Parts: sequence; C-alpha cells; structure tokens
Amino acid sequence: MPRSVTILGAGLVGSLLAIILRKKGYNVTIYERRPDMRKENIGAGRSINLAMSTRGWHALELAGLKEEMEKIAIPMNGRYLHQADGTAAFQQYGKNNEAIYSVSRGELNKKLMTLAEENGATIVFNQRCLKVDVPTNTVHLQDENGKEQTVVADLLFGADGAFSGLRASYTHMDRVNAAHHYIEHGYKELNIPAAKDGGFQMEKHALHIWPRKNFMLIALPNIDGSFTCTLFFPFEGNPSFQSLKTEAEVKAFFEKEFPDAIGMMPTFIEDFMNNPTSSLITTHISPWHYQDKSALIGDAAHAIVPFYGQGMNAGFEDCSVLSALLDEYGDDWKTILDVYEKKRKPNGDAVAQLALQNFIEMRDKVAEPAFLERKKIEKELGKRYPNHFISVYEMVSFSHTPYHTALSCIQAQDKLLARIMQEGDFFHNIQEQEFDLKLDQWINDYHRSVQQLDFGNNA
Amino acid sequence: MPRSVTILGAGLVGSLLAIILRKKGYNVTIYERRPDMRKENIGAGRSINLAMSTRGWHALELAGLKEEMEKIAIPMNGRYLHQADGTAAFQQYGKNNEAIYSVSRGELNKKLMTLAEENGATIVFNQRCLKVDVPTNTVHLQDENGKEQTVVADLLFGADGAFSGLRASYTHMDRVNAAHHYIEHGYKELNIPAAKDGGFQMEKHALHIWPRKNFMLIALPNIDGSFTCTLFFPFEGNPSFQSLKTEAEVKAFFEKEFPDAIGMMPTFIEDFMNNPTSSLITTHISPWHYQDKSALIGDAAHAIVPFYGQGMNAGFEDCSVLSALLDEYGDDWKTILDVYEKKRKPNGDAVAQLALQNFIEMRDKVAEPAFLERKKIEKELGKRYPNHFISVYEMVSFSHTPYHTALSCIQAQDKLLARIMQEGDFFHNIQEQEFDLKLDQWINDYHRSVQQLDFGNNA
Repeated sequence: MPRSVTILGAGLVGSLLAIILRKKGYNVTIYERRPDMRKENIGAGRSINLAMSTRGWHALELAGLKEEMEKIAIPMNGRYLHQADGTAAFQQYGKNNEAIYSVSRGELNKKLMTLAEENGATIVFNQRCLKVDVPTNTVHLQDENGKEQTVVADLLFGADGAFSGLRASYTHMDRVNAAHHYIEHGYKELNIPAAKDGGFQMEKHALHIWPRKNFMLIALPNIDGSFTCTLFFPFEGNPSFQSLKTEAEVKAFFEKEFPDAIGMMPTFIEDFMNNPTSSLITTHISPWHYQDKSALIGDAAHAIVPFYGQGMNAGFEDCSVLSALLDEYGDDWKTILDVYEKKRKPNGDAVAQLALQNFIEMRDKVAEPAFLERKKIEKELGKRYPNHFISVYEMVSFSHTPYHTALSCIQAQDKLLARIMQEGDFFHNIQEQEFDLKLDQWINDYHRSVQQLDFGNNA
Repeated sequence: MPRSVTILGAGLVGSLLAIILRKKGYNVTIYERRPDMRKENIGAGRSINLAMSTRGWHALELAGLKEEMEKIAIPMNGRYLHQADGTAAFQQYGKNNEAIYSVSRGELNKKLMTLAEENGATIVFNQRCLKVDVPTNTVHLQDENGKEQTVVADLLFGADGAFSGLRASYTHMDRVNAAHHYIEHGYKELNIPAAKDGGFQMEKHALHIWPRKNFMLIALPNIDGSFTCTLFFPFEGNPSFQSLKTEAEVKAFFEKEFPDAIGMMPTFIEDFMNNPTSSLITTHISPWHYQDKSALIGDAAHAIVPFYGQGMNAGFEDCSVLSALLDEYGDDWKTILDVYEKKRKPNGDAVAQLALQNFIEMRDKVAEPAFLERKKIEKELGKRYPNHFISVYEMVSFSHTPYHTALSCIQAQDKLLARIMQEGDFFHNIQEQEFDLKLDQWINDYHRSVQQLDFGNNA
C-alpha cells in the first residue's frame, strides 16, 4: 500500500507536489499556515507576479495545468531597457524568440490548490508548523487561535518556504549544516495602472528594466493592463530606503532617476511611503532529507533571490525530478530521497549563485553597450553552432540543463566572448573567411572545455 | 550611574567578562544553564583541558588570575610527533622556547566563577535561556524543573557558547546573516593515566601528536601525571567511527595505528566503546550586537574548531578588547558595541579559518620532513630578521597581532619559504654570502608585501 504523505505548505510547490503524488496514488494532506486565499483576500506571498520559464511549464504539464495557465500568462520575449540617458533598447532573450511568461502568483496558487483538492488531496488551513520532531516525524501545529495539535507523519515534505518549520528543525540537529544570507538590497512594489482604454501603457511583451548600476526598477505586465513594478534598492547608503525619508525626497529621486516611468505611475509617492520594504534572503542547508521519513523541497530547501526569475521554476523542477524518481524507484523512498538530494542539492546551490550574479547583470551590465553587443553575438553563435554553443541565459531559462552545468559554463563563455570581441565588430568580421576559421577553432576550444559537463535533461 | 549587565553563561568567557565588568563598577548577574560545577560533579564542557597562550594569559592578567593559574598550568614548548614509521620528532613552537600551556578547563572555570562572585557578581545556576526578545531585551529563562521566568536586561551579553540562546534569537531576525558548519570529523576523549610512581609516562612539556593524514590522536598533560588523549577521526568512511564497531575492530585499529600509545592506555578499548563521540562546529553570525542593548562574545559569536588551541584565547581576547574600549569610551555603549564588533568580527572569521587550516597541518603536514624543515627555517628567519619576519604560528600563539593579519600573511610566507627551500639545504646555504644577499632581498619582498597590514596590538 502506498504511504500517506504530509506536506507543509500549500504554496506553489506544496500544491503542485500534492497533485503529482495524488496522481501516483498517495494519500496527501497539506497543512497551510495561512487562511484559504480563495476565500479571504490575502497576499499570495512575497510578490504579485513571477516569470514562468521552461522548467516551470514542464512541471505544470505533469500536473495537467499547462494549457489553462498558458491562457493567462503573458509572454515576455526580452528585456526592454530604459537607460539612464533616456534612450531605450530591446534585448531579446532567445535566438528563436523564446519567452519567459509573466504569471499572477495568486491565480496560479489558487488553481494549483483547487486542482490538488480535485485530485483528492486535503488542505487544512490556518495551521502553522511550530517545529518537527524529526526522528519521530511528529509535526507540531498551531491554529489561528493558538490551539496546538501534533500529527505523526508517515512521509513528510517541507514545502513551507524560506522560513520553513521543517528546515528550522533540521537546523538544530547535530551535523546539519545551514546558512542564510541577506543581500544589502531590499525591494518595494509599486504600480503602473492600465491605460484609460484598458490597454498597456508600455510594450506588453517585455520585462521592463530601468538599470541604474547599484539599483534598478523593473516592471512585469499583468493581464488587466497594469504593470507590477519593483524597486530593488539598497537598505543603507545614499540613495537608499533609509536616505529617502520624506515625500519630497521620494519625488525628487524618482524625477531624477525614472523620469519616463513616473508619468505612468500616478500613485508612486503614496505607494513608496505606504508599501512595505522587504528583504531578500538566500538559504543553504545540508542534508535536505532525513532517512526515508522527510525532505525539503522548493524554497524550504533553497530560497534564492529573484533576479533570474528561477525561484518557482527551480521548486517546480524539484517536483518534476521527484516525479521521475517515483517512476524509477516505485515505493523505495530511502533511495528516492537519497537520489533526489544528490541530484537537486548541487542545482539548488548553483541556481542560488546564478540568481545573485544576475542581479549585477540586470541592474548594471545591461546599461553597457558592450554587454548588449555580447548578447547579440551569443545569439548568432547559437544559430551558427547549434550543437556547440548555447548561452547560459538560454540554458537556465529555456532548457532542462542542470543549473550547475549552466553555472560551470560561465567562465568558458566569458573567455570565448572576450576573444571574439577583442577582434572588433563581430558582425563585420564574420564576413571574412580568415575570422571564420579562427571562430571555428575558438568554438571548438570552448566546446572541448565544457563537454565533460552534464548537459542531460534534468527532468 | 553605570548600567546593570546581564550575562548568559558562566563558562570561561562569561565569568571572565563578569570580573572585568565588576572591576569597572557595573552590577553583574550571570544566568548559567548548568548546576554549579563547584558543588556537583559535572563535565566542564566539551573538553577536559585546553591550551592557554599569550592572548589568554593577557586577559587573565586583567582579571588578576594570571599568577594563580600559572601554578597549575603545564608549559608545552612544542609538538612531540609520534610518526607512523615508529620514529619520533620534537618540533619547538617558538624561536625563544615559548610555550602554550595545558590548563584544566574545569579548574579554570571554577576559579573564574569564584573570582566573579568575590568581585560582587551574582551567578544564578540552572537557568537555561530559551530565547531573547531582542528589541525589548527580554530574556526567557527556564529552570531545571521547567519553571519559566523572564528578565528584562539593561545591557545583555550572550556568552552562552556555540548554541547560544541569544545567537539563536538574533538568527531569526530580519537581515541577520548566520551560518554554521560541521566538519566531517568528530572526536572522542581517551586517557593515558599517570605512571605507577605518579609521574608522566611521556615527555611532560609537549603536545603529543600521532599524525595519520586523515585522522590523528593527540595528548595533553594534566597536573596529576595523566594525559588527556583525543582522537580526531572521520564519522564515516574507512576507517571511521562508523566502521569501528566491535572491540576487536577497535583493538586491531589501535594496534596498527598507535602501537606506541596503547602500551600506556590500559582502558583504551572500554574508553572508545563508552565515551561519547562529539561533533565539531564552526559558526558565523552578522551582526554580533543589537544597538546598545546586547552583544555576543566568545563561542556564542564565533565557535571554532579546536585545532589551533585558540577558542578560549579568542574569547578571552574579546574580553580584553572590550575592557580597553570601556576605558576609551566610558559609558557610551552604542560606540563601544559598534567598535567591538568592527574590531572583533574580522578576527572571529579569521581565527575560524586558521583553526580549520591547522587541522590539516596537525594531522597530515607534520608527518612530512619538508614541513618540519620549513618550521626550523622559519625560526631561524625570525632570529635573523626579528623586525621583518615572524611566523604565522608565532603571531597567533605568542602575540596580540590580529588574527586576520596572521591569516593574511600565510600566502606571502608560503611564497617566501618556497623560494628558500627551492635552493636546497638552507642551513648550509646561509653560510654563503651570495645566498645571504638573495635572502635579504626575498625578506624585503616579503616584508613589503605584508607591511600595509595591521600588526598593531589587539588588546
């Protein structure tokens, strides 16, 4: 008889995992800290929308939710850059016009919860996990009135986010390594409403970025014609959340830095003054599981900063991998959890690193002409040498290549592109046979240096 | 009026801090988790003896305990190496026959507690800190019967060790970074009793090491003629704590690896089977203090592995530095705690790193003739160029040079010694004028590369 599974957290990853496990015949009960967001008007977590890419879509396909979500997802085919000098630039993400998709976190979560219930999972709301006695798999829960109960889980998953109760309980055990780190920047959500005619005030099919070196504003489209803006900004220093104290200071700052944005943002001053400022955490823990009894998944295992748009995608990929392991190993949960951790932990560490690095790319590098040129060259290389070169961004966003492989390619790609760009205008040079021969050689050098890596399908 | 100070933990650092603060006129109350070790026979913590060096002695001098402790401390002037091939070697620690001192942790702790009380501090025993509400400085305590009380501290120090309650409470706060890491090795204490005549069975004035590459046995002398032995050994693998399961396996292992030791260890098999196996943790946290209200000190701020013998010395140096800051800034605790953290945090991080590196030196490198030769050359360099060269070991153990400076010198010393040793027999070469001139130049190169570092007195 298949085991019963207890899941902590009915967020995106917990709900998706419930669907997958129900489809395999497991009994599933989820304990969720918050009230039912389908009945009560509460925030869906830390951001209003998120960027779904290939890994996320694959997991939604497993759950049978892909087609429905595609209808309400907005493809963003590239970055629309609002440079400090007032110019604009559009930088395509993929060589074949691939897109990442702006999706409402709340809508996605509600649909996943409903689908989990339709598949037979039980969700119990208002149940905060206080702690888990890990060796006995005893979960201590507390409801909204402070009433406590304990549940002994047969098999337990902690899908309860960056501040997971199961993760905290692992952390206190002997020989469990753990670390968490906040970056020096926080974020605040702002808003660009729909135009009066209900349309979009800016290009709809883009992720908008105002890169300003040490900080940035970004905007993602919503289906109602609005954009959700996020200011990523230092907590301290000048300028910073600390230094902008008065409405006048906020107004002057936005007028100086984002003159083209504020015309579309009638409430930016109130929003800035009233909306919360949130911090950004990265977490690491080892091990991720305990015997055949419990495991962490999603943010609970690897909370990351949002700058690669991979938080949910990585969590969903955890679910895809687990699903494949269930097919491979049946009920042998000792092996399943061992292999799950062995496969996913290096990827959790790698995507954390990629996400931190991409902040510098988004807020600073995209403002440089040389960087935009490099991105164009990468796409051309991908077209010319499809079997030998794929850019790191494309690996991360448009493939199932392991994150740790993508991370390992960065240095080799930096070397290759530096060689190419040292020669001057690439799109001129490639018309010359002599350069072409050199390029073949360089691409071969690059390919040799990375070919021992695992480019296998993660899912 | 000076503020009242609450200290968590009456261990070595908490008790010493209490003495220093009482001498400056502060009211001091310590809450200690364990019963009074002067009345009940309990272990004094994680090891029976420890190695006191220059930083520790300086702090004891401030407390007025130096002379008394010197009477019961055993100088160890170097490492006595019991090599795998049956040979022995003695490696002096300092160029001037300096020593580190084997001290009983329990005796030192008892004396510090008594001195704290004699100076007017109050120690409340059997009070476990469950948590601290950091913004209000409210300490939640629980006694041995489970009875809870809260104490609102005016100024609070967490001197409660690697698993500090104050540290845990900091860890849960927004934008506090924390990490802890266990090494792959654990340890087990064993014993070499005194000889029948009450004397020592081995050289008394040495720290004995049986270096065996991936593991080691060490022994420190006690005043009763015995040695406390510690086996540092992998938890897993072969051989490991896991692989040695039966008495026969333990016996065979010791007979193979430590044949010269077991003749002196009549109970090693029982000791191995019965004594606990303990893990070894390194912790980092940032920040170390909260406004002018609370701060971490000693292991609570920077728990480290024991391989440089600097855990207590580093904690005592925290106290010395704090004492000097009290002299400099009076009652301005906002400044005192700011500067304390600024000065000590880089040193806590550095000594953690030094301690991890020294494990490899102790268990592996000391078995190599080239390493022993290098140590001899370092001492000669120190004598010839006293203003330009001092070895990292001597900086750490016999000076007040900041740990982070010592750490920063490693690479430059490695380069210098590699240059020298590449030329062949140093003690022959230095008789040649040509080599002497080259050596002058190399020493100048070394000195130039490190002279921008802070060699100032830490205390």
